[in-house]
Amino acid sequence: MSYDNLIEVTGRVNDLLNAGSVLSWDARTMMPKGGAETRSKQLATLAVAARNLLCSDETKRALDGAASDVANKADDSPEARIVAQVREAIDYHERIPTELLRRKTELGSSAHEVWAEAREKADFSLFAPALTTMVDINREMAQAIGFEDHPYDALMYRFEPGTTNAGLAKLFARLREGMIPLVRAIGEAEKPRSDFLFRDYPVDGQMEFALNMAKKIGYDTDRGRLDTTVHPFEVSFTRNDVRITTRVNRNYMPMSLFGALHEAGHAMYEQGVDPAYTRTPLATDLISLYAVGGVSFGAHESQSRLWENHVGRSRAFWNNHMDDIRDAYPGTLDDVSEEEFYRAVNRSEPSFVRVEADELTYDFHVMVRCELEAKMVDGSLDVADLPEAWNATMKEYLGVDVPDDGKEGVLQDVHWSSGQIGTFCNYTIGNIMAAQLFDTATAKNPGIQTALDGGDYTPLRTWLTDNVAQHGRRFSRDELLENATGRALDPEPYLAHLTRKYTDIYSLAAA
Amino acid sequence: MSYDNLIEVTGRVNDLLNAGSVLSWDARTMMPKGGAETRSKQLATLAVAARNLLCSDETKRALDGAASDVANKADDSPEARIVAQVREAIDYHERIPTELLRRKTELGSSAHEVWAEAREKADFSLFAPALTTMVDINREMAQAIGFEDHPYDALMYRFEPGTTNAGLAKLFARLREGMIPLVRAIGEAEKPRSDFLFRDYPVDGQMEFALNMAKKIGYDTDRGRLDTTVHPFEVSFTRNDVRITTRVNRNYMPMSLFGALHEAGHAMYEQGVDPAYTRTPLATDLISLYAVGGVSFGAHESQSRLWENHVGRSRAFWNNHMDDIRDAYPGTLDDVSEEEFYRAVNRSEPSFVRVEADELTYDFHVMVRCELEAKMVDGSLDVADLPEAWNATMKEYLGVDVPDDGKEGVLQDVHWSSGQIGTFCNYTIGNIMAAQLFDTATAKNPGIQTALDGGDYTPLRTWLTDNVAQHGRRFSRDELLENATGRALDPEPYLAHLTRKYTDIYSLAAA
Repeated sequence: MSYDNLIEVTGRVNDLLNAGSVLSWDARTMMPKGGAETRSKQLATLAVAARNLLCSDETKRALDGAASDVANKADDSPEARIVAQVREAIDYHERIPTELLRRKTELGSSAHEVWAEAREKADFSLFAPALTTMVDINREMAQAIGFEDHPYDALMYRFEPGTTNAGLAKLFARLREGMIPLVRAIGEAEKPRSDFLFRDYPVDGQMEFALNMAKKIGYDTDRGRLDTTVHPFEVSFTRNDVRITTRVNRNYMPMSLFGALHEAGHAMYEQGVDPAYTRTPLATDLISLYAVGGVSFGAHESQSRLWENHVGRSRAFWNNHMDDIRDAYPGTLDDVSEEEFYRAVNRSEPSFVRVEADELTYDFHVMVRCELEAKMVDGSLDVADLPEAWNATMKEYLGVDVPDDGKEGVLQDVHWSSGQIGTFCNYTIGNIMAAQLFDTATAKNPGIQTALDGGDYTPLRTWLTDNVAQHGRRFSRDELLENATGRALDPEPYLAHLTRKYTDIYSLAAA
Repeated sequence: MSYDNLIEVTGRVNDLLNAGSVLSWDARTMMPKGGAETRSKQLATLAVAARNLLCSDETKRALDGAASDVANKADDSPEARIVAQVREAIDYHERIPTELLRRKTELGSSAHEVWAEAREKADFSLFAPALTTMVDINREMAQAIGFEDHPYDALMYRFEPGTTNAGLAKLFARLREGMIPLVRAIGEAEKPRSDFLFRDYPVDGQMEFALNMAKKIGYDTDRGRLDTTVHPFEVSFTRNDVRITTRVNRNYMPMSLFGALHEAGHAMYEQGVDPAYTRTPLATDLISLYAVGGVSFGAHESQSRLWENHVGRSRAFWNNHMDDIRDAYPGTLDDVSEEEFYRAVNRSEPSFVRVEADELTYDFHVMVRCELEAKMVDGSLDVADLPEAWNATMKEYLGVDVPDDGKEGVLQDVHWSSGQIGTFCNYTIGNIMAAQLFDTATAKNPGIQTALDGGDYTPLRTWLTDNVAQHGRRFSRDELLENATGRALDPEPYLAHLTRKYTDIYSLAAA
């Protein structure tokens, strides 16, 4: 049957993409420095091989036959969706010249070392040539892919289909409207103490505690592992091997812990995809050419932010685990109450670094990046002028004076080094989705909140598996949201959550 | 130019094979157990993709053009050799049905877990079904590849071109003739003390010392790393990323140390290949479909055995490094002299386990395996009868009574689990080549031995790089030997070395 042939050949596309993911994981966790140059060629070859196999006559023949095989299936059946998605992906990739893909992938890998050095030395000029090439390649890609309104729309399509620059502007405006009053009020309120977060927390102990908490919320280490990297990430090589990393600062313990909870949230999405979808297009992003089961990068981020913020930074979580963390660091937290700890890990203050930003100010970091990316992509901002624009926009949105271009400045994020432009919106979309999903889950199922209050994460995880993870890429992000919550992307539960939480913690006057 | 196209497309074949190597390394060092099943599919897809790209119309077109491009080059020029090797490899692979390759690779990966469990439980029946399939697949492959005399010849061609079952029999007979009198005389001689090798050596300390010694002889960790595995191995992802593993027994320190020296010898072969050959067929075994620069598996083994035995187990080595090892394990070796240590690590005694066998009895383990493999392949030995035949042949050659089928019996080696049949001869060919090369290097260049006596490994490494490693796969194994030593494979220097060494250590009467 042609449909089976389609499953077989797309299974091989999935294998090639998963191989690329293993090579990327290795490059960021294990590889000696000598390996960087040829590794980038290997990654490029895998991406091109996957793309070529997807667009091969073999796949097209199988696809044409499969279309007849599934003609009497429902439009949203897994089979019909697979056929439609393969067709769409072939159409998408045939618009992008192979050479462009190869250059992008090669540069995306080799630029990582350059970026790491530039970041370390806080010297933007070292990275500027690679970034210029990267922006040019992305502009070429936007032209090849096509767009109606703004070239940035074409780039965001890879990661968050349906998102437009104009739509983002509206969403960001609504968020600012709700958040800025909170940020201002917090700036004038008394700060909770947080001195104890900066005490001496041994590195090995942090890794052990972070992994224990990730397992506690449901991360399955029989199908995963935790390592350390400069920039934390999650990556899957099918649902049965889903790895996470975190980073450790001996004198700032929350970094390793919340990094691990965040990445575990991502990981549980992949670990929860229907096993029947393994190696199929419903566990393969054939547009972005990543072998993932998550339906969009924003949907993925919703799961990491939900577990990190709605669970890990909740009062209930610390009521349940304060003794665990005291036991993990004997003598270090004896003078700290549950409530003090809860408030400390929710302290909000404008800062320089996105991955360390608190829940409330995080989205401003996203807005800065989306705005500057869109301008680089439409040509209204030169790469050479990026640091200046960065610093000015950070001042405007967060009121901070960026100290330099390195770890606390324009070079802080790994994304551009890997050739990704158009992904930052995913973080904010993830924040919004997380609140929307958590709100529905707990409102519709009071037992979920009761379980969380008692330190039992199974009911919430089950609801998320049933409503999000198991479906893999079968439904679009908005279909998924509508099925789960009754409506498309909606920022109101997120704003309500932030208002409720910070009004309480900082004893603000109710709006 | 067509030649450049040939280099480009074979470079991509090399990339795919190197990706497979990364996935194999990961599977044996880092992968959580859940990953095994899909990993085997991923490896199969990479192998088939590499084979298909090699045999593609694109490669053939480039090859035809390249043949004209290099028509006026010398027959042994790198360019002419590349063209000839690609042509030979296409011819070879087109004889093997793709489905057979896919089945072999898939099984080779999934059978690893089965083998590991069977070995752990010493239960051959668990592994027998997989091995039966593996033998059948190998027999089919031998028929497809073709042979003149014995099907085992066709299988050995993959790893050690030119080796025949008949030729091996002659070589083994000559070795037995020289070795058996030594083994007998040692059996009657007084044994050197070795109690101190079984003391308590902390695991971390062993890994540190093993790595330090590997670096001392010339292993470059900027282009490599050391990890622990059940079965030690070396693997390269181009000359710039060449990794080794070893295994650690807290109460038997030589295992980690000589394992690391052995694998470092392999690694220095790959690290020493001419950089100009990177990603070309001169650093890609297009027959066995491994991305290696070594010209044959036996040639590779010559480098590991040379560094392990001729250097690491030499009197000079321990005269130079006895203080280092005393410092590495404070208080543990204070009562042991250089000479006692040297004798202990050269103690010879028939044993059960190949990878722990001493230099003198090692080849008997090889003979057992080659003999049994040949019989399974020609159908004169059923897999079901293998354990019995194993135990009987071990008794005949080594005089030992194998205790069970697990770690000390027929299941001890990883090779069959990965589908490799026909590789064991490589170890003995490596032993022979190691002695032949070491003999020539030191006889022709007295400065090399003087340097070794002073703990300086650079002149020997330089000679080996110049005469072996740098050439990658440009010359055949016998061309390489003739260029370096003036003659083809010759067991006499090896027998002379063993006789000299063991006569001295055991104070045997001169023959």
